[in-house]
Amino acid sequence: MVLDNIRIVLVGTLYGGNVGSACRAMANMGISRLRLVAPDPHIKWDEAERMACHSEHILEGRQVYGTLAEAVSDCVAVAGTSVREGLYRRHARGPREVAPDLAALAEKGPVAVVFGREDKGLLNEEISSCTHLIRIPTSTVVSSLNLSQAVMVVCYELFSSLGKYEPLKEKSELASAALRERMFELWRSHLLRIGFMEEAKADHMMAGFNRIFSRGALTQDDVMILMGVIRQNEWAIDHLL
Amino acid sequence: MVLDNIRIVLVGTLYGGNVGSACRAMANMGISRLRLVAPDPHIKWDEAERMACHSEHILEGRQVYGTLAEAVSDCVAVAGTSVREGLYRRHARGPREVAPDLAALAEKGPVAVVFGREDKGLLNEEISSCTHLIRIPTSTVVSSLNLSQAVMVVCYELFSSLGKYEPLKEKSELASAALRERMFELWRSHLLRIGFMEEAKADHMMAGFNRIFSRGALTQDDVMILMGVIRQNEWAIDHLL
Repeated sequence: MVLDNIRIVLVGTLYGGNVGSACRAMANMGISRLRLVAPDPHIKWDEAERMACHSEHILEGRQVYGTLAEAVSDCVAVAGTSVREGLYRRHARGPREVAPDLAALAEKGPVAVVFGREDKGLLNEEISSCTHLIRIPTSTVVSSLNLSQAVMVVCYELFSSLGKYEPLKEKSELASAALRERMFELWRSHLLRIGFMEEAKADHMMAGFNRIFSRGALTQDDVMILMGVIRQNEWAIDHLL
Repeated sequence: MVLDNIRIVLVGTLYGGNVGSACRAMANMGISRLRLVAPDPHIKWDEAERMACHSEHILEGRQVYGTLAEAVSDCVAVAGTSVREGLYRRHARGPREVAPDLAALAEKGPVAVVFGREDKGLLNEEISSCTHLIRIPTSTVVSSLNLSQAVMVVCYELFSSLGKYEPLKEKSELASAALRERMFELWRSHLLRIGFMEEAKADHMMAGFNRIFSRGALTQDDVMILMGVIRQNEWAIDHLL
């Protein structure tokens, strides 16, 4: 049930062999839902098939999307993976720490684990739309992992964490990524309107809000409240002045 | 220091890509000593080079041996990996449990972690010469891991276990695999001579002894075997002289 709700999302993958190897790693760890976002148009599917040993059903069942937002729109949590460190990535935790949280969330709804391009990883704007950020601990000398190896480590930790998480006790359903996205758009336009931030700083500030609201899981009720505050502010500006 | 003492040993590897991917996984986890035992004569080294991204130094520094015994002769511990279950493999533990033990041993001397062939894994006689046996937990549906993925999981656990092991407090130096091998040969010839076992059962029985002497604690079965040897010795002295 928990593993059935995990979606492995590969963004902009260049090499078919990595997609196939990722399928096999997923199958080893009982995970079977693969989503691809804009894979390279020249990707070699025959290489993917050759590496997807014992996991051809996962490869064949893949779903392909144009954007990350579309690929995760139904997900109640979106965990990005990154080896890079930077302003937008300081809240990353190791897969062993994050796995029990994701497993608990996956009891409630679909959870995406997102892996970036072989050469560039995930872009800042993609990281910004994630609720969790995972950094696999590595040697400082060679920190860049092969894509399918990274998929293996995270799937292994998810599989190993089963039964080690606290069940969530929220009454409201968890909010989907699409609903959260609507909330952030509302906040963004409002915060710009009231002069809380300038356009030039908006991405940075919204990444900060995303981190704040990703510390716990957001329920639909939470999102309704957070959107309600903004709507009320908008009304106040229009009517009280 | 600990990671410098880890030797990754690949036995009878068929595909160059797996050797290269294993090198990259090792490099990610700070491990750099690669030993190959009788790799397939048709192995494609150019594929290995292509996959050994950021870890060409490990691939180039590989040492090649004719037999597993030669490859591990200087090692104070030899951990085999296996997905199969069977009479010789029941004492396998997960990599997370074994890693701290191997890290503690690697403070004292070289420790080998041994991975078998892509198609057949390690043979029973190879398992028999190991002091530890690792089984990576997997889905029951698809239990066979890609070779380099298995290397990644074990190296990741070794890397992650650093600092989480109890330093060994033995006063004596640890025995090397070669010395242990001499002991087992002595036992074997003695046990055959005194009629404790028949030649046809000798491999099976010696695998049992190897398990016993690779453990920290002895089970009741172990004690029964050790007592049986003494009783047979007593009988032999009374009746054969």
